[in-house]
Amino acid sequence: MRAEIVSVGDELLKGQRVNTNAAFMAGALGGIGVWVGRVVACSDREEEMSAVFAESLDRADIVLVTGGLGPTRDDRTRKAVQQLLGRGLELSQESYINLVARIKQRGLEVTDSLRDQAMVIEGSHVIANTKGSAAGMIIHCGEQFQNHYLVLMPGVPSEMIAMMELTVLPYFAALSSTVIRHTPIKTLGIGESTLAGMIIDIEDALPEGTTLAYLPHATGVSLMISTLGSDRERVDCDNRHVVDAIVQRAGKFIYATSEVSLEETIGMMLSAGGLTVAVAESCTGGLVASRLTDVPGSSAYFLQGFVVYSNQAKERSLGVPGKIIKTFGAVSEEVARAMAIGCLEKSGSDFALSTTGIAGPSGGSPEKPVGTLCLAIAKKSSGIVLSKTLVMHGDRELNKLRFSEALLRELWGCLRQE
Amino acid sequence: MRAEIVSVGDELLKGQRVNTNAAFMAGALGGIGVWVGRVVACSDREEEMSAVFAESLDRADIVLVTGGLGPTRDDRTRKAVQQLLGRGLELSQESYINLVARIKQRGLEVTDSLRDQAMVIEGSHVIANTKGSAAGMIIHCGEQFQNHYLVLMPGVPSEMIAMMELTVLPYFAALSSTVIRHTPIKTLGIGESTLAGMIIDIEDALPEGTTLAYLPHATGVSLMISTLGSDRERVDCDNRHVVDAIVQRAGKFIYATSEVSLEETIGMMLSAGGLTVAVAESCTGGLVASRLTDVPGSSAYFLQGFVVYSNQAKERSLGVPGKIIKTFGAVSEEVARAMAIGCLEKSGSDFALSTTGIAGPSGGSPEKPVGTLCLAIAKKSSGIVLSKTLVMHGDRELNKLRFSEALLRELWGCLRQE
Repeated sequence: MRAEIVSVGDELLKGQRVNTNAAFMAGALGGIGVWVGRVVACSDREEEMSAVFAESLDRADIVLVTGGLGPTRDDRTRKAVQQLLGRGLELSQESYINLVARIKQRGLEVTDSLRDQAMVIEGSHVIANTKGSAAGMIIHCGEQFQNHYLVLMPGVPSEMIAMMELTVLPYFAALSSTVIRHTPIKTLGIGESTLAGMIIDIEDALPEGTTLAYLPHATGVSLMISTLGSDRERVDCDNRHVVDAIVQRAGKFIYATSEVSLEETIGMMLSAGGLTVAVAESCTGGLVASRLTDVPGSSAYFLQGFVVYSNQAKERSLGVPGKIIKTFGAVSEEVARAMAIGCLEKSGSDFALSTTGIAGPSGGSPEKPVGTLCLAIAKKSSGIVLSKTLVMHGDRELNKLRFSEALLRELWGCLRQE
Repeated sequence: MRAEIVSVGDELLKGQRVNTNAAFMAGALGGIGVWVGRVVACSDREEEMSAVFAESLDRADIVLVTGGLGPTRDDRTRKAVQQLLGRGLELSQESYINLVARIKQRGLEVTDSLRDQAMVIEGSHVIANTKGSAAGMIIHCGEQFQNHYLVLMPGVPSEMIAMMELTVLPYFAALSSTVIRHTPIKTLGIGESTLAGMIIDIEDALPEGTTLAYLPHATGVSLMISTLGSDRERVDCDNRHVVDAIVQRAGKFIYATSEVSLEETIGMMLSAGGLTVAVAESCTGGLVASRLTDVPGSSAYFLQGFVVYSNQAKERSLGVPGKIIKTFGAVSEEVARAMAIGCLEKSGSDFALSTTGIAGPSGGSPEKPVGTLCLAIAKKSSGIVLSKTLVMHGDRELNKLRFSEALLRELWGCLRQE
């Protein structure tokens, strides 16, 4: 089946918002064997929307629309669809009941405008909104548009994602006869071209129907192995074959072959070993602690974090000797090691991590340029197990992210040897 | 003048890459008074490209295409254009000379393929590529397409951005007579529909050429007031008039009328007052510290953060009495207040903030459901100035984000009264 994505909203045409929704939807649709032919961003004027919907419905079996479903007056998607299909609105009892329950739970007043938010296009399959108020719709367009489907969802990413996962993907997966298997290969500590060189012969000998994509991101590169076919067993076998070959070749750079983050992987390793961790952060400013605690259940292994931005805080909270800071500078492996040891003692954790560096944009010097990171890891039984100095090349936020990634990568390496 | 953007590349249709190029181009074009009507992402098959280019050229004065010009699959975009316009290729001497110089500078060999990369559509205005090898083109399409313009650029963001800034924007700015003014209005603590209700009469009486857009995001809503016209003074005046009216009406929910984040706004307020801040975080796990330290120069006012996940850490690092935790529970305003006081004392800051709550997905109870946040703010001179209990409705990451936003919002409120 062929799909098109229509993203409604003037903010996309003014460059005020990047269209991340379309990327998510396209990836998710690929996962159920639905191929996206075009992505169109258009304004929220009714005539424009009607024209775009009609053109897309002519070409594609499924047209997925996001945006323009909220409670304000620039939300005109329903009107454009009414006009295009010549259908009226009807109340979705289920949506209305959910909305009222939601509002009451929050102690707010039930107003007339709620009813309006629960109105859907006649004959729609209603998509429940578990994260917000506006209902989504799957509309079978009838012979007028070759029995193609029009799917309406809100533009708020969390609402759209929940709708896709809970309703839209299962709905169309059941209609699609193509089988697709995607396996992500999540790597760290290796660049795109080095990895490509390492697996070039595997890439040259991919079985028919299997593709290998490089997905570079801010902190490294992931691979996606996708296999498409009509026979589930064959598809799974071909896909596994390629994944196994890559893991065998580049295994030491691979932390997962499923959709898990590095912090989730680390959490599983810590939990499995009954180990705890604490962090002492200067230049990452709490980002490492925040990433580790993004994982559900992290309170079982994450004990404590110290964000010690000033020298005084490093001395007072972690017992870093002022003399070390004076002699080597706050950004030094010596200070990173003293921070890790202090963090270990103060927290009583099994592992203690530390960062000190220069995120930028100012504060650099010829010897220690912006992007310099000193990190250390200490272990209860053995003291300092590792300290390193690295240099990154990004702006402030990117440097913070890459600093945190470098530290987590080193922790992953340590845990691997446990 | 009206433009459309066409982004060529299968990676956009598979969700492997987010279309950041289009957002940049749309924003930049708005700045010279060129209005983007549609953004289309399509595959790099020649027939598909030709069809999309033709449709866009029918509707828009300028069609800007990125992608399909690189050295590996370089000829598809040019081929599609050749086919569409019935024109041949010619060598751009200037591009060829630059390319050869570039290659020699890197100590590489000059091969025949270089000549191919310097071939452009007949009659093009060549856009020099200062960051890479493929030349860009501005093509005047003649009467066949109502004298509209087709602009071809590579898809590599750095190359495209340099071409836009050095050549494309000056070229079309000289042809455009429209002026645009965008003003964002950044709000907090108010929902989309409540805000809409509050300013409905202003929205009903917008001057001609001015639009008001709602940009909802995970933690609230922003407005964008856009005014378009031919007279700079008039455009600025109309825009300011609407912005002023909204600020007068909803001022207490507005923290900025420019493109700054809440943490930047808070940073400016702290700096202006010569004040410092420290944070004690349980459920936000370091996110508040990380957001505050995302701001360049934050080391001037951010002293220290304590991520105290375990009860033991709360007692040991902040001196929260074990008795209070036992009596009221770790998630309580009593504990939040004790954390803020402890943080104030340990850090020596002017303001100390705290969070304790249940981010989920587990750990909730009927009395304290998942999403519960207790927060407190203490001030050096006056002790606790505020404590609150709120309930959010998101998954773990969204709750963490909304918790951090709620705390920063309260800090903003306190700083406003300074």
